[in-house]
Amino acid sequence: MSTDPFFHPVSGFDLPRYAGVPTFMRLPHVGLDDPRLADVQIGLIGTPWDSGTTNRPGPRHGPRQLRDMSTMMRAQNGATGVRPFEMVNCADLGDVAPNPADLHDSMTRITAFYDRVRDAGIVPLTAGGDHLNSLPILRALGRSEPVGMIHFDSHTDLFKSYFGGTQYTHGTPFRRAIEEGLLDPTRVVQIGIRGTTYDSEDRDFADSVGVRVIPIEEFHARGPEDVMVEAKEIAGDRPTYVSYDIDFVDPAFAPGTGTPEVGGPNSYQAIQVARMLDGVNIIGADLVEVSPPFDASGATAYLGASIMFEMLCNMALRVKG
Amino acid sequence: MSTDPFFHPVSGFDLPRYAGVPTFMRLPHVGLDDPRLADVQIGLIGTPWDSGTTNRPGPRHGPRQLRDMSTMMRAQNGATGVRPFEMVNCADLGDVAPNPADLHDSMTRITAFYDRVRDAGIVPLTAGGDHLNSLPILRALGRSEPVGMIHFDSHTDLFKSYFGGTQYTHGTPFRRAIEEGLLDPTRVVQIGIRGTTYDSEDRDFADSVGVRVIPIEEFHARGPEDVMVEAKEIAGDRPTYVSYDIDFVDPAFAPGTGTPEVGGPNSYQAIQVARMLDGVNIIGADLVEVSPPFDASGATAYLGASIMFEMLCNMALRVKG
Amino acid sequence: MSTDPFFHPVSGFDLPRYAGVPTFMRLPHVGLDDPRLADVQIGLIGTPWDSGTTNRPGPRHGPRQLRDMSTMMRAQNGATGVRPFEMVNCADLGDVAPNPADLHDSMTRITAFYDRVRDAGIVPLTAGGDHLNSLPILRALGRSEPVGMIHFDSHTDLFKSYFGGTQYTHGTPFRRAIEEGLLDPTRVVQIGIRGTTYDSEDRDFADSVGVRVIPIEEFHARGPEDVMVEAKEIAGDRPTYVSYDIDFVDPAFAPGTGTPEVGGPNSYQAIQVARMLDGVNIIGADLVEVSPPFDASGATAYLGASIMFEMLCNMALRVKG
Amino acid sequence: MSTDPFFHPVSGFDLPRYAGVPTFMRLPHVGLDDPRLADVQIGLIGTPWDSGTTNRPGPRHGPRQLRDMSTMMRAQNGATGVRPFEMVNCADLGDVAPNPADLHDSMTRITAFYDRVRDAGIVPLTAGGDHLNSLPILRALGRSEPVGMIHFDSHTDLFKSYFGGTQYTHGTPFRRAIEEGLLDPTRVVQIGIRGTTYDSEDRDFADSVGVRVIPIEEFHARGPEDVMVEAKEIAGDRPTYVSYDIDFVDPAFAPGTGTPEVGGPNSYQAIQVARMLDGVNIIGADLVEVSPPFDASGATAYLGASIMFEMLCNMALRVKG
Amino acid sequence: MSTDPFFHPVSGFDLPRYAGVPTFMRLPHVGLDDPRLADVQIGLIGTPWDSGTTNRPGPRHGPRQLRDMSTMMRAQNGATGVRPFEMVNCADLGDVAPNPADLHDSMTRITAFYDRVRDAGIVPLTAGGDHLNSLPILRALGRSEPVGMIHFDSHTDLFKSYFGGTQYTHGTPFRRAIEEGLLDPTRVVQIGIRGTTYDSEDRDFADSVGVRVIPIEEFHARGPEDVMVEAKEIAGDRPTYVSYDIDFVDPAFAPGTGTPEVGGPNSYQAIQVARMLDGVNIIGADLVEVSPPFDASGATAYLGASIMFEMLCNMALRVKG
Amino acid sequence: MSTDPFFHPVSGFDLPRYAGVPTFMRLPHVGLDDPRLADVQIGLIGTPWDSGTTNRPGPRHGPRQLRDMSTMMRAQNGATGVRPFEMVNCADLGDVAPNPADLHDSMTRITAFYDRVRDAGIVPLTAGGDHLNSLPILRALGRSEPVGMIHFDSHTDLFKSYFGGTQYTHGTPFRRAIEEGLLDPTRVVQIGIRGTTYDSEDRDFADSVGVRVIPIEEFHARGPEDVMVEAKEIAGDRPTYVSYDIDFVDPAFAPGTGTPEVGGPNSYQAIQVARMLDGVNIIGADLVEVSPPFDASGATAYLGASIMFEMLCNMALRVKG
Repeated sequence: MSTDPFFHPVSGFDLPRYAGVPTFMRLPHVGLDDPRLADVQIGLIGTPWDSGTTNRPGPRHGPRQLRDMSTMMRAQNGATGVRPFEMVNCADLGDVAPNPADLHDSMTRITAFYDRVRDAGIVPLTAGGDHLNSLPILRALGRSEPVGMIHFDSHTDLFKSYFGGTQYTHGTPFRRAIEEGLLDPTRVVQIGIRGTTYDSEDRDFADSVGVRVIPIEEFHARGPEDVMVEAKEIAGDRPTYVSYDIDFVDPAFAPGTGTPEVGGPNSYQAIQVARMLDGVNIIGADLVEVSPPFDASGATAYLGASIMFEMLCNMALRVKG
Repeated sequence: MSTDPFFHPVSGFDLPRYAGVPTFMRLPHVGLDDPRLADVQIGLIGTPWDSGTTNRPGPRHGPRQLRDMSTMMRAQNGATGVRPFEMVNCADLGDVAPNPADLHDSMTRITAFYDRVRDAGIVPLTAGGDHLNSLPILRALGRSEPVGMIHFDSHTDLFKSYFGGTQYTHGTPFRRAIEEGLLDPTRVVQIGIRGTTYDSEDRDFADSVGVRVIPIEEFHARGPEDVMVEAKEIAGDRPTYVSYDIDFVDPAFAPGTGTPEVGGPNSYQAIQVARMLDGVNIIGADLVEVSPPFDASGATAYLGASIMFEMLCNMALRVKG
Repeated sequence: MSTDPFFHPVSGFDLPRYAGVPTFMRLPHVGLDDPRLADVQIGLIGTPWDSGTTNRPGPRHGPRQLRDMSTMMRAQNGATGVRPFEMVNCADLGDVAPNPADLHDSMTRITAFYDRVRDAGIVPLTAGGDHLNSLPILRALGRSEPVGMIHFDSHTDLFKSYFGGTQYTHGTPFRRAIEEGLLDPTRVVQIGIRGTTYDSEDRDFADSVGVRVIPIEEFHARGPEDVMVEAKEIAGDRPTYVSYDIDFVDPAFAPGTGTPEVGGPNSYQAIQVARMLDGVNIIGADLVEVSPPFDASGATAYLGASIMFEMLCNMALRVKG
Repeated sequence: MSTDPFFHPVSGFDLPRYAGVPTFMRLPHVGLDDPRLADVQIGLIGTPWDSGTTNRPGPRHGPRQLRDMSTMMRAQNGATGVRPFEMVNCADLGDVAPNPADLHDSMTRITAFYDRVRDAGIVPLTAGGDHLNSLPILRALGRSEPVGMIHFDSHTDLFKSYFGGTQYTHGTPFRRAIEEGLLDPTRVVQIGIRGTTYDSEDRDFADSVGVRVIPIEEFHARGPEDVMVEAKEIAGDRPTYVSYDIDFVDPAFAPGTGTPEVGGPNSYQAIQVARMLDGVNIIGADLVEVSPPFDASGATAYLGASIMFEMLCNMALRVKG
Repeated sequence: MSTDPFFHPVSGFDLPRYAGVPTFMRLPHVGLDDPRLADVQIGLIGTPWDSGTTNRPGPRHGPRQLRDMSTMMRAQNGATGVRPFEMVNCADLGDVAPNPADLHDSMTRITAFYDRVRDAGIVPLTAGGDHLNSLPILRALGRSEPVGMIHFDSHTDLFKSYFGGTQYTHGTPFRRAIEEGLLDPTRVVQIGIRGTTYDSEDRDFADSVGVRVIPIEEFHARGPEDVMVEAKEIAGDRPTYVSYDIDFVDPAFAPGTGTPEVGGPNSYQAIQVARMLDGVNIIGADLVEVSPPFDASGATAYLGASIMFEMLCNMALRVKG
Repeated sequence: MSTDPFFHPVSGFDLPRYAGVPTFMRLPHVGLDDPRLADVQIGLIGTPWDSGTTNRPGPRHGPRQLRDMSTMMRAQNGATGVRPFEMVNCADLGDVAPNPADLHDSMTRITAFYDRVRDAGIVPLTAGGDHLNSLPILRALGRSEPVGMIHFDSHTDLFKSYFGGTQYTHGTPFRRAIEEGLLDPTRVVQIGIRGTTYDSEDRDFADSVGVRVIPIEEFHARGPEDVMVEAKEIAGDRPTYVSYDIDFVDPAFAPGTGTPEVGGPNSYQAIQVARMLDGVNIIGADLVEVSPPFDASGATAYLGASIMFEMLCNMALRVKG
């Protein structure tokens, strides 16, 4: 019933958690050309790329700091008792190699990487990178049919364009994904939206195509449980992508991000919503916009790694079936 | 219906928000001698002065960091849809020039500046500076009749004196303002009071003159909405000053301040109370005690700028009528 | 009815709070060989030792930073009106001298120090140091009979051993204390437990000996008041130790600690639970795991000092009787 | 003999240096459409763009922090007695508006801006931005004839391409500039080169076209004076561009940069080499690669602003003639 | 031959250096009313006051951080073998109590404190505070006859006034001291002067009264040894005050100060000049302008404490005779 | 002529340097049980252990941050042209697993690890950890015959004991190593010694056994070249260990360490002395005392990695022969 010991993380009782080469959650590093790839069920992947960032850059450094902080994760979920690494084979698949000076080349490289992951039957859990990364990932995961999405964020990322017509930025990925038929907008829910805006063009688009937007005022009024019940109804049981922008969380808890918006959920709520993804048919998930230059202490990455662990537990439950 | 484009902020789609000379909210800089002053309806002003600080100095640097972070504000309030810059002409009036080595000279300079602002018919929104700044401002705004005040803070700032008789510190401005007839104590409410004290002399004075003090325990028990209903009843519809000390907010959300007190509101509540000032007859407002040396990241100033934006929206609604 | 002025803290009106030699709460420094020791009723003590730390070290620096930040405490509890320094004689007893390179020698030194404190009839309030410090302290305070304990933490610290059999780490003190008969497990309650684990060995032990564990999910669901009512029932009126690990609090409010776990209480709740210790028969208390290298700003120590002040007020009420 | 007072910086005796809207060196802000542009002789310009950065991003934030720190500059050079602002009309021309998500669009925008500056007869002093900014600037300044260059850096920035053929990064600008005929390689000198490399392709190219490279070992052995004598001989009296990458300086003095190399000059030498540019026929200069996210304290920007002031003094001497 | 053990610092072998209540150099705290005052020969004093600061405040926090870092000092000078604490009785005399909101009251308090110190026959070594502190100190030490001064700084502090006539700031103390007859200008030497200025009014004054100014260019050209030979000749053997502004040192080594100027001495030279004060008839010394808010790490205070130790060694040699 | 491509580091042109799982210098991770171990010639090893630290802990985190920063190293030495990874097979052998709560168990584990490394014919380059790590390493490397040592440090680490008889701390390793016959004291040279001391017991011991101590004053007077000529003469051509304590370097360049001493070499000199180890018969080397909690920016680790690269170049030259 237990998984291959090759895929078990290094225990902190064997090697202290601050020690050793930091892979995601202390899992083995299995590159795409490694023969063990065939045995991997869930793959943790870094996308160290932030060329879509229109304001403060830095998320390209996210995967490394998330790897570092993820070594603080232990074997068992303290709240639910789930032990994901004994349920399914998990591995660190390494980073996609972006081209920091060529946006379109980078997107091509990312999609190619995730095509291989998908073809290997591996469910990917991504550590970004900025939010534009979700688009080339969805080009791999949503290529056969549009998928649903549960999206935690303070921004809709549904804008049409920036700077006089620029189509690809971290504020536009899901507009593009809907246009490209990668997402089914009627199965998309966005939770935590807030902050000042230039206009309501994104919200008007959401309304026009059937995306459900839950602003932060509604989130605080209803509470996480109630909101998540609705979110899971929207996603239904068909394939669903989960995209978690760390700026969903209040900047006191997650300062290391480029476009923070005050007034968000606290860290307990940040964990709660991820934990309540149980039962969702997750075909991939990401945790994006962790920007180490704005949080040298790593507190944001530590929260991010904790959220990834909660998502991983639910992904493992689903994969194991 | 819309305002003069001269008074519109630079858009982040024309020039990224991190770029350009940082004025308050990317508004035009209109000095007191500028001919466009006559068209200004709401003026954002910096008072870079902290000589009243008895503990940890630094708020003199507040205006610059608040200007910097305020460039993150966009055109529209995400929660209410208000677009203040299209409703009234707003401008950055620059900083009052203090004399860092002469407390009384500085107060004279500040009052003189605000006299000119008031005489020009401009409603001022101030970025401090320490809380003693509110006194010379009130000497301008309250000179014809005592005004009411809604005051967010962890301290009453109603003490009689410090250090064996010193009358003017950031712990005494409102005691002086009441003594000088600038404030009507029966229309003053103080929200969020907490922390250790030397004695109850301030609270006894408040009781004796009719100032309503709402300690943090009551705030947390009743919630922001209920408290703000009472606060607005106390202020009534007559001229009211709003004074917002950033140490009202819990130091996890606002670490950059000189006299923090733990156990305060979170950032969502910090925004909520400012948003609920709608309808108040605001004749001036300030956001004080942001101390950049104690928060190099600017998170405190970012929250401060977000609060200023909320206050500005309500000021614009009132000015436009 | 008031205490000896010798034992009154320096007032911030006489000497600003940032000035002067920083003793705990600006109290007089009374070493164990000082003749005034006989008059002390509550002694504040530093245990600058962290050799039990298995992950990120630093709490050895806690006492100094806690002293520094404790100078921000004033004379009176703002919420309850208690003025502890006028009720009982309080003093800073200095630091125990540890041996940073010899774990067992250090434990011997700590117990010897607290034996003298106990023999002098002084109730100790300790600033750690890591959580292993609680064990040698309990060897002094629990030597005549097992005591009860109210324990705030995100970890149970009830593990059997680490690294293949190591008995003494900051994850094992209360397992040892129960084994050594220093604690009565049926009068022990642990509040706030959360985070990932390696297994459930600690929780199984707790269940087997009757320790009550209140995980964070239950804490958030019931609220601090309800939980504290139960905690005080468990402790009863017999001698009780209070152990407060700062990692009980969410890391946004207390980043300076070695083993943070996200999703904890906020600072208001952190204060509330300490304030609700009124009436408990406290025979000693500690505040541990403040790690300055992970919080250069001192915010964690400031919260820690605020919690110590709340505990001190309740200890003074009890000592005065 | 003195310049128009309109162009004099605000004095710190009138308004403290930490106060007021921060323009470069407290000069007036004169946009390209401002009628006063015709009177400007030296223009300080920000290029907040870093899309050429292949490693750690952040220089897009450089202009704002350089403006902030440049307000510390006073009227007179303490070492030489030069008072630049009384010699020639200087102004802050604002920032070029880049497109953070489109590299080529940004280069086009930068060249267009500098074309206008050049056409107005203004000598530009640029605050970057990463080093790729120098290429579109040279496309404006070197369009009529190839110019010479004195280049301070730890890297040659002469590489052919990155990431399998990418032509435009911050490691390639001067290779492109030589290829495009903007620079005369025989009048180019590069000072301070050091650090590990992948290969010697850049140095081989330099040798092949006649660029003089002075590695750091030679710099330390000969000293700044001797090196600068040679550098000025190489540049001669014909039009010369000065490009100063802050990573020329040792990272202890300039930590805020993306690709630091240890073992560089100290801050005194960093100033010396700029001061020794007297007499050079400077047709433009830049100070690039200041990256605020890697130096929240602003020490790097402060040094950068000090270097800009030294360069400005020499530019003013030359412009005044 | 050795001093009273009461005056010996706590050894790091008895209590680790990071532990214990932090007095200056771990010396006993002897207040002005303490009977042991009569035995003190050299007194270390804090002046936590910075109301003369015209730019970035913070030195009021200097004494506490200097005390903290001074606990790193051990018993013996590693270079010279001097063991000061065994030569003369040294003690921490505590802090002068300033009035942060009243500049003149504070100066009066400081002079009164030093009058008592002088009358007790104690040679004071002061930890500032900003440089204005030197004036009230000199009013005590120079009251019977003008003294000489060796002054390390990047600024002359000889300006006439600020902000339209303000006489007392940290840029004017020695102008006042010369005017008041506290300093003999012909026995004053200022070393390290640099940075931009508004004008040469200070230097003209220096020339007119005979103060010798050694700018940084001369310092770097001649080297510390040569400069110090001249400095000691200027001071001669009559009573001499030593004033050491930490901004003398390059900001890479001493970032924590309010008015840094790049291009200064390194830390070895900073120590060298203090060590070469041997033989000077030091009647008092200060180390000022350490500003902890601008250096949370304490590196500046650590260097400051190291400089204080060097000065103390030379003071002890002289006192012992 | 070139090495097996398996052992070549990942190029920054294939995967940006900030990306990917961070092994030492981007080398392959080859554990002690990996079959490729037989092909390794130089092994980079982390010893994440600091239980010998008597003052400020943290070096246990050194290996991870050194790995992170070492990814900035490229293929070729910019000054000498050496390309070490093409000369000998280098690999990251991972970390020794210490027992943070048991000093002697940890030393046993370290020696066992290095015994295996030595037996495999691999020359180890170690990233500490505190300086006590050198002792168990020398127990492996010096077991057959006493070796010489070139030691860069600000402390001799030759003390007899601490805290009343404790034998094993980071201040005693080389006293023990000489006593145990692991080092030949007549072939040991210590360079850079400085700072305050408790007494001269270490220096007296050095003199008595023939260890050559070069204090910092001599180092600055003679310069690095001259000193290194002598150092290499002392070491001769027999097996020599190189131990490099990062606190050898001035704390402005290497702030992240527990026991800094001001007045040390700059970063250029720090590199120079490592570069001048060419020709030494290095049988092992370490870089210790990098303490990330005291330098979140990683500047110290970046310098440390640069020094490791220089040492590695010389080790490769020797190994290749």
